Amino acid sequence: MTAPLKIAIAGLGTVGTATVKLLTTHGERIARRGGRPLVITAVSARDRRRDRGVSLEGMVWYDDPVAMARTADADVVVELIGGSGEPARAVCEAAMARGRHVVTANKALLAHHGLALARAAEAAGVTLAFEAAVASGIPIIKTLREGLAANRLDRIYGILNGTCNYILTTMRESGRDFADVLGEAQSLGYAEADPSFDVDGIDTAHKLALLASLAFGTVVDVDSVYVEGIRHVSALDIGYANELGYRIKLLGIARRTAQGIEQRVHPAMVACTTAIAAVDGVFNAVVAEGDYVGRSVHEGRGAGGGPTASAVVADLIDIAAGRSAPTFGVPALALAPPGGAGMAQRRGAFYVRLMVVDKPGVFADVATALRDEQVSMESILQRRRDPGEIVPVVMTLHDTEEQAMAHALEKIGRLAAVVEPPCLIRIENL
Amino acid sequence: MTAPLKIAIAGLGTVGTATVKLLTTHGERIARRGGRPLVITAVSARDRRRDRGVSLEGMVWYDDPVAMARTADADVVVELIGGSGEPARAVCEAAMARGRHVVTANKALLAHHGLALARAAEAAGVTLAFEAAVASGIPIIKTLREGLAANRLDRIYGILNGTCNYILTTMRESGRDFADVLGEAQSLGYAEADPSFDVDGIDTAHKLALLASLAFGTVVDVDSVYVEGIRHVSALDIGYANELGYRIKLLGIARRTAQGIEQRVHPAMVACTTAIAAVDGVFNAVVAEGDYVGRSVHEGRGAGGGPTASAVVADLIDIAAGRSAPTFGVPALALAPPGGAGMAQRRGAFYVRLMVVDKPGVFADVATALRDEQVSMESILQRRRDPGEIVPVVMTLHDTEEQAMAHALEKIGRLAAVVEPPCLIRIENL
Repeated sequence: MTAPLKIAIAGLGTVGTATVKLLTTHGERIARRGGRPLVITAVSARDRRRDRGVSLEGMVWYDDPVAMARTADADVVVELIGGSGEPARAVCEAAMARGRHVVTANKALLAHHGLALARAAEAAGVTLAFEAAVASGIPIIKTLREGLAANRLDRIYGILNGTCNYILTTMRESGRDFADVLGEAQSLGYAEADPSFDVDGIDTAHKLALLASLAFGTVVDVDSVYVEGIRHVSALDIGYANELGYRIKLLGIARRTAQGIEQRVHPAMVACTTAIAAVDGVFNAVVAEGDYVGRSVHEGRGAGGGPTASAVVADLIDIAAGRSAPTFGVPALALAPPGGAGMAQRRGAFYVRLMVVDKPGVFADVATALRDEQVSMESILQRRRDPGEIVPVVMTLHDTEEQAMAHALEKIGRLAAVVEPPCLIRIENL
Repeated sequence: MTAPLKIAIAGLGTVGTATVKLLTTHGERIARRGGRPLVITAVSARDRRRDRGVSLEGMVWYDDPVAMARTADADVVVELIGGSGEPARAVCEAAMARGRHVVTANKALLAHHGLALARAAEAAGVTLAFEAAVASGIPIIKTLREGLAANRLDRIYGILNGTCNYILTTMRESGRDFADVLGEAQSLGYAEADPSFDVDGIDTAHKLALLASLAFGTVVDVDSVYVEGIRHVSALDIGYANELGYRIKLLGIARRTAQGIEQRVHPAMVACTTAIAAVDGVFNAVVAEGDYVGRSVHEGRGAGGGPTASAVVADLIDIAAGRSAPTFGVPALALAPPGGAGMAQRRGAFYVRLMVVDKPGVFADVATALRDEQVSMESILQRRRDPGEIVPVVMTLHDTEEQAMAHALEKIGRLAAVVEPPCLIRIENL
């Protein structure tokens, strides 16, 4: 096992460059762990002339990543281009078709084409590994695929997007509003110019779909994830959450139910005393609950060059050492259909904030709407009194079906005294 | 790969029984993950007639675990007897000598004979796996050996003993003293009749030595671990810790220094705001700090039948699937000598509690002793005034060498007004 593992890297952005740096600076350490040297033989990126601060000497340059995947002298192709479409998909497919292993950090690609790619890997007898695709500072893919493999996992949830967590943390610490903090995050480079992938929950949904597949042995099914982002969370809600003993986090939650796998992404109020409530800033965390292991909590950086390169190279070391596992933990053919546990029947507690004209009778109208849908109130709070003006009214509701809650809010939203669409945030009992 | 993996289990206590139960009830799930069925062919324990609540049908019974390891029809021997001596060691050696893989939960055995056993495994071409030996509710062995393998790790620390963490948590929550809470823990079965392995830090030292070897690629070296238990931590100290913004935890800490690997186990004050401070009760946590990955935090149950069986079976699934790694992450020959970073030169902050006769001049004498050793005080606190009576005086010291601190405390302890040996607890900057 002393023949080097030959590696071709497609994509030399932050992660690709960090991967080149890690493989070259830690070569000896990595070879000891992998049982043989890991050598980069080829690279591909858009701009050959850009100075990336790393030497690409001895690596064959390809302008076309698909051509590289097809023809480079490599045992593994590392796909760090990103995006669910081309050329990322073609790079992976071309590499596998030629019998090369694939390591990727591409959650969008796997969330949308995971089953097809896993089948292609099996047909070719190669490894398709993606530790870097989810919470790269924690080896959560390996943990679910191997470390907790003996368990029947019943629920898995976490904070999977560092941008959202940074925004929510900063909103809480500074009292500032979403738009303001987002703007700052963009100028600091923590958020993209087009932030919707992050703040609308899409990135979290991609990652959740991958974790759910690994945890439950089901076909990855991103289309059935219920997704809600954090744009509607206001400084007001964060303040009320604190007062009620909660933190607001964008969570991805997947749960085994009698109807199938329930998958949802939305802002949630979690008790301050939980481990997940304390995960702040750009950190990610994943909690897995198994029947034998109990609760297993993992926390680390979510993204960035360093952590992502660490995850990519961990996958490469496994390949060098001859360790492999099916892409989603079990052979593609053995992946169960995910079933469909829709949101409508889900039960849970809720926080609702209304902006109402402060006048007698409003509480009675709201209470009536809730009663008509058999939604049971836990508390109601109107801090400010300001007759004739618009004031916030905040309620918490006992466990209720989503559908009933939605119907009640529809009625409440139509009341004359309610001047904004009600703001609903789920309270998650973790 | 459809031939079943045949397993012989030595030791049917809590963990052995849970392992039998897990393998039999989750057989189908486990076979999907392992790529073939996992079948228990033989078991060995002391008392054949004891009802363990699990069926042993179809398994060959051995009174002698070493004979079983030598002759049973098995691909793997699971050693769950425990203890660093016989018969555990002979079971592992006999199994490997016959070309059988070994899975063990035995930290004491590996901490004392890790290198010899790793060599034996390599010589025989078999796997020696021990996920269940440390913090079984977290796959931390796999995480260090594979998941974070690309990093240069600089520090690893954690809460590694659930009994101590339960005692310290209960002391804080109830205000009761050590002896009282220990007695209760014993009657509840959370602590052994002879608790010294746990409360004197020995168990934590065993686990730390294993983690350090994996993290730093060094020969496991339990003898150079500095060990201090929790018997001297009083309710008074826990109260002061709270007041100063700390929690007291029994930590195992290993760090890469210029002199070699520093390994120490002792009660430590950690800031309330750290992730580790929030780990309460029987939970364990491990934090690894790597140059690429940053801080990676893992938390889960430390022991118990369920989590430990989960870890044992994860190792078995890896073996079934043909995944293997050197025992300590790199070949035994490549393990570096651990070097010797002794405690005397270590620098850190300290908390010191003195019991003194409340009379003028004591502060001056204490301050002089500190000054003579160039120990710099951060704060001093005497809550109670009670002239002529014995009162606690609490100090925190800026970063100081252990040796200087010890000399200063020796002088302080000899002062006439100081009526008890000073209580020292290290403040850990995490």
